[in-house]
Amino acid sequence: MTKQQTVLVTGGAGYIGSHTIVELIENGYNCVIVDNLCNSSYESVARLEVLCKTHIPFYHVDLCDREPMERIFKENKIDSVIHFAGLKAVGESTEIPLKYYHNNILGTLVLLEMMQRYDVEKLVFSSSATVYGDATRFPDMIPIPEECPVGPTNPYGQTKLAIEKILADLYNSEKETWKFAILRYFNPIGAHPSGLIGEDPLGIPNNLLPYMAQVATGRREKLNVFGNDYDTRDGTPIRDYIHVVDLAKGHIAALKYLDARQTGKGICREWNLGSGKGSTVFEVYRAFCDAVGEEIPYVVTGRRAGDVINLTAKPDRAKQELKWQTELDVATACKDNWKWATENPFGYQLKGVKADFSTHEEQYDARFITIGADSKFQATVANLGATLVDLKVDGESVVLGHNCEAGYLTPDTCYAGATVGRYANRIAHGKFQLDGEKYQLTINNGVNCNHGGPGSFHAKRFLGPLVQNPSKGIFTAEFMLIDEDKETEFPGSLEVHVFYKLNVLTKSLEIEYTGKVSGKATPINMTNHTYFNLNKLLGKGTIEGTELQVATKKSVEVDKDTIPTGKIIERDIATFDEKPTVLGEKTPEYDYSFVTEEHSKDIDTRSKKLQLVTKATNPESKVTLEVLTTEPSFHVYTGDWLCAGFAPREGFAVEPGRYVDAINQPSWKDSVILKPNETYGSKIVYRFS
Amino acid sequence: MTKQQTVLVTGGAGYIGSHTIVELIENGYNCVIVDNLCNSSYESVARLEVLCKTHIPFYHVDLCDREPMERIFKENKIDSVIHFAGLKAVGESTEIPLKYYHNNILGTLVLLEMMQRYDVEKLVFSSSATVYGDATRFPDMIPIPEECPVGPTNPYGQTKLAIEKILADLYNSEKETWKFAILRYFNPIGAHPSGLIGEDPLGIPNNLLPYMAQVATGRREKLNVFGNDYDTRDGTPIRDYIHVVDLAKGHIAALKYLDARQTGKGICREWNLGSGKGSTVFEVYRAFCDAVGEEIPYVVTGRRAGDVINLTAKPDRAKQELKWQTELDVATACKDNWKWATENPFGYQLKGVKADFSTHEEQYDARFITIGADSKFQATVANLGATLVDLKVDGESVVLGHNCEAGYLTPDTCYAGATVGRYANRIAHGKFQLDGEKYQLTINNGVNCNHGGPGSFHAKRFLGPLVQNPSKGIFTAEFMLIDEDKETEFPGSLEVHVFYKLNVLTKSLEIEYTGKVSGKATPINMTNHTYFNLNKLLGKGTIEGTELQVATKKSVEVDKDTIPTGKIIERDIATFDEKPTVLGEKTPEYDYSFVTEEHSKDIDTRSKKLQLVTKATNPESKVTLEVLTTEPSFHVYTGDWLCAGFAPREGFAVEPGRYVDAINQPSWKDSVILKPNETYGSKIVYRFS
Repeated sequence: MTKQQTVLVTGGAGYIGSHTIVELIENGYNCVIVDNLCNSSYESVARLEVLCKTHIPFYHVDLCDREPMERIFKENKIDSVIHFAGLKAVGESTEIPLKYYHNNILGTLVLLEMMQRYDVEKLVFSSSATVYGDATRFPDMIPIPEECPVGPTNPYGQTKLAIEKILADLYNSEKETWKFAILRYFNPIGAHPSGLIGEDPLGIPNNLLPYMAQVATGRREKLNVFGNDYDTRDGTPIRDYIHVVDLAKGHIAALKYLDARQTGKGICREWNLGSGKGSTVFEVYRAFCDAVGEEIPYVVTGRRAGDVINLTAKPDRAKQELKWQTELDVATACKDNWKWATENPFGYQLKGVKADFSTHEEQYDARFITIGADSKFQATVANLGATLVDLKVDGESVVLGHNCEAGYLTPDTCYAGATVGRYANRIAHGKFQLDGEKYQLTINNGVNCNHGGPGSFHAKRFLGPLVQNPSKGIFTAEFMLIDEDKETEFPGSLEVHVFYKLNVLTKSLEIEYTGKVSGKATPINMTNHTYFNLNKLLGKGTIEGTELQVATKKSVEVDKDTIPTGKIIERDIATFDEKPTVLGEKTPEYDYSFVTEEHSKDIDTRSKKLQLVTKATNPESKVTLEVLTTEPSFHVYTGDWLCAGFAPREGFAVEPGRYVDAINQPSWKDSVILKPNETYGSKIVYRFS
Repeated sequence: MTKQQTVLVTGGAGYIGSHTIVELIENGYNCVIVDNLCNSSYESVARLEVLCKTHIPFYHVDLCDREPMERIFKENKIDSVIHFAGLKAVGESTEIPLKYYHNNILGTLVLLEMMQRYDVEKLVFSSSATVYGDATRFPDMIPIPEECPVGPTNPYGQTKLAIEKILADLYNSEKETWKFAILRYFNPIGAHPSGLIGEDPLGIPNNLLPYMAQVATGRREKLNVFGNDYDTRDGTPIRDYIHVVDLAKGHIAALKYLDARQTGKGICREWNLGSGKGSTVFEVYRAFCDAVGEEIPYVVTGRRAGDVINLTAKPDRAKQELKWQTELDVATACKDNWKWATENPFGYQLKGVKADFSTHEEQYDARFITIGADSKFQATVANLGATLVDLKVDGESVVLGHNCEAGYLTPDTCYAGATVGRYANRIAHGKFQLDGEKYQLTINNGVNCNHGGPGSFHAKRFLGPLVQNPSKGIFTAEFMLIDEDKETEFPGSLEVHVFYKLNVLTKSLEIEYTGKVSGKATPINMTNHTYFNLNKLLGKGTIEGTELQVATKKSVEVDKDTIPTGKIIERDIATFDEKPTVLGEKTPEYDYSFVTEEHSKDIDTRSKKLQLVTKATNPESKVTLEVLTTEPSFHVYTGDWLCAGFAPREGFAVEPGRYVDAINQPSWKDSVILKPNETYGSKIVYRFS
């Protein structure tokens, strides 16, 4: 592939779609997803972003809606389409056939119309072995070759066949133009080995593995085996199960096949995607029990209408022409499926997690995610700046934040709740020297560069978050960002992860930062810039009355330009063994860095002991905040210059991190220089009582 | 059929649809038409109204548009649907397949969705023998039975088959509910024997007979015979041609079959509609030449892609189950087609005819039709009141009229251009006696009933018009109205026709009235109430300066209540041999009836000689109007009480008719009493120079 192609993936949030996205990105394609989410979740896209380390444009659009569909083609230079979107439940299709025909056929027609209008010629279509119907009605058609006469036995299959006909007719109308690959799937199972994405059916699962998984995790009582009186080796019907990752790779093979075709040589051709090996229901049941490590209860019930005895693919055509064949067996699929099921027992539908969008138009890029929702301790985080937007203790907010992304995008910023980086706090005159090279950053704070300069991490949309609920009361949200070399004036391509871990039971929020740089070494110093106001419960607009204690009086001396002199001095502030400093209406004012460890050189402090650095209490609201960190320094700021919608002294910030301007201080320098192959790391904990 | 059922006919303005409407109405069904007119014309609906003597609600709606479709189901209590609407050109479908799939399938899905929502369970679907594809690929499948495996060879056929599958799947989802008759047409040809409706393809005809007709009428050079090297008796392919009237009757048979089914017993079944007899192209060509009476030029060209050798129906199933079979042969079809073609050489697309709608929403019931459009003499007529809305001489209007229907529907009326009836002019005290019965009409003019009373013909929407262009420069527009017994307080059910005949060459407009009553005898006296203003060319708002001459000074004497005394007196007005009376700003005022023949008893005057009764000239504009009539009297009115948007003396009217209040005058009575089995008739001519 000479240039990076963009593939529009319809239904890309779904089971097969999401797995195909992984393979597409791995193969160097850009992806744009369109999905109406009628049977899927945006969560899969957020996870794909973290898994694939790239932003994936997402459109919450129904293919039947011509206008927004046209917008997608206008806003993106699409090179090809993989078309998964469609209703797919066989049983349901027999009950509400009109909806199936309407959704699947009209959606495809609108898609093709847009492809025609915007000169997009390549399409890989997600068809199904269902188009064959009962292939056993013909002699010698098991395994099923593509030449087997079609004859679907249900509306779902009819819609797939009708779309195949539409593609054939459209190809015939312009044979030099269209390149269509029709992929007839056999039975996809399994999940991505990462355990991050998998099949997440809404309602009662129609398919064998999701159903067994729900039985195994206790959500369903027992598996129904529909008939054990078929003429097969164990009486249950035979299907050709194919690992979804193999299936996803089949799409890449088909797309590359289309990509490789000469201009002016169109094609419209069907390929079976199957393993060629049939397994009975009992055989898959056995493999799944082995993966789970226990016997899953089942009951044999009567045959299900429309089921046929054997659907096994003859996969020779795909092997010969697409150079593709399955590599993973049923046992692997069961193992991967079980990993997915156990790590995500409720799929993407986590209780205690809410997603909001900062505009009415469901702008998925600007998401607010609440973890621990409706509990006594909940945090809301935003993609923008991986920001801590809100933190509620017993239902009352204790931090400053905006209720929509736009609030954070004003020209002035006070970094409320933001992830600050690459380099938190000041760099004197915005200058530093590294590996013999001189760097000049944009000055945004007096004569200095503060918090990485304008447009830094706080103003970037992070990938993800990947939200999980690993155990009761614990929620995690992982954001990721790739800050390319020079993108924010710093050297080297930096990948950072911001990992929020909320513990509802201990009312503590841990924030972990990691970073890896490639190409060049970089200065790094990350922190979270939350402003706390423990008075908000009382409806008070200022921090007045808050009692403050810190771990140390030792502080970095700065000159008139707030540049460290290199000396450590003592400041007038209460330590833990002293009577707390009470914050008044205007005094005392703090905007100072304190130092708990003077000579740290660690680039990754995460393995260090978390140390309590600040304790703040409001005797009236009775809320106490403790800030703990693995970092050697912390900055206390009483918010005297608060702006961007907030009033001075409406909140105070405690920003753990490395030493101020360390990059320009020979004795501190090592603690902030991240070299390739090293890992930057730090931890902060906000704990409430 | 116990109650009159309402059938929604989709595509009812089209070829087969319009012929089916005739049969439906003949069989006692009400019809509602929905058509997007993309390949048909509203003219066919206007003609159907006159042909079927009934109003046919029409919706200019695309089936794909859910909202207006829902309105149709809301506004009408639909009992069943006959679904013709669809794109149908095989060749075009191979070029723009997406449009075919979109239009045909989505339209059907929306229709079915509405049927589901509004509990309409019966549908007759217009399918096609095209679904069989090449039936000769199987042994023993000619003639083709319904059991023949399907396999369309073009997108058009694919859409028909897809719809058949949709119907089958929908039926399977609710077997107790749905009653679907799928009719697979063979080759419809011919036209209604009236010559009023027929096949009117836009662009180059795809079908044999319309093409031959266009060759015969000189619109096309010669017929192309696509291949004479097929293995048939004369080398040309064999088709099963079926007269469109037979085909239409097949729909009635199918609908009655569905109607007769028990509640709770659904059905979805296919029936071939064909004759069972195949004809070659040359055989049909021969029959058509015989009908035309001359040899039509043709050329044999190569075979056409997708054509199959033989498509002949096995019609046994329809015969046995629907009790239907063809009755008309190919020769009859050719004869009827030729009548249609010669009487309508440009189908419904007449040059010199324009249709406008009085609102922006294309309210077809409120049509304004211009005949002689863009010529030196053009008339615009409206459905409402069969009104003469405008008459333009050399491009300038010479009559008073409104530019939209709403102008005519104000509470006051001056009858501008209207057809006046049942009884034009006054009936003393609104009373009359007929066949021993006494009638009292609503008083709307002093103590009298004038012009039939309120809500009479001038305020009724007439059926049609049926517009024709029988020879160069001649245009006709025929309106019809059925005024039921007592509907406007008069006795007997009266059917009237208003026949406008415009002669562009002689600048004359003839208006002919006919009436037939059933049940009871009725008084009748019809006229046209146009106000002329020969000054409009000069931009003058009044009739001032118009010079008037009439045939006689003899006039009906009236008392203070404008009731005739029975005496004939002479009035001061110039006759043709005198110096004209010049109409001034306010005088002379006329609102008098003149009498050219004192003792006429004729109920039908049409065979009488047209007599010049009034001549009006404007010396400045140099326009002269002559009013001629077969009627014994004429009323002259100088418009001194003009209202409804017009100013006093803005126009003058000359209203030929029977004697004023004749119904109450023993010596004149016979001339206005129309008895059952008699025909009322009269003629008026407006001639300009």
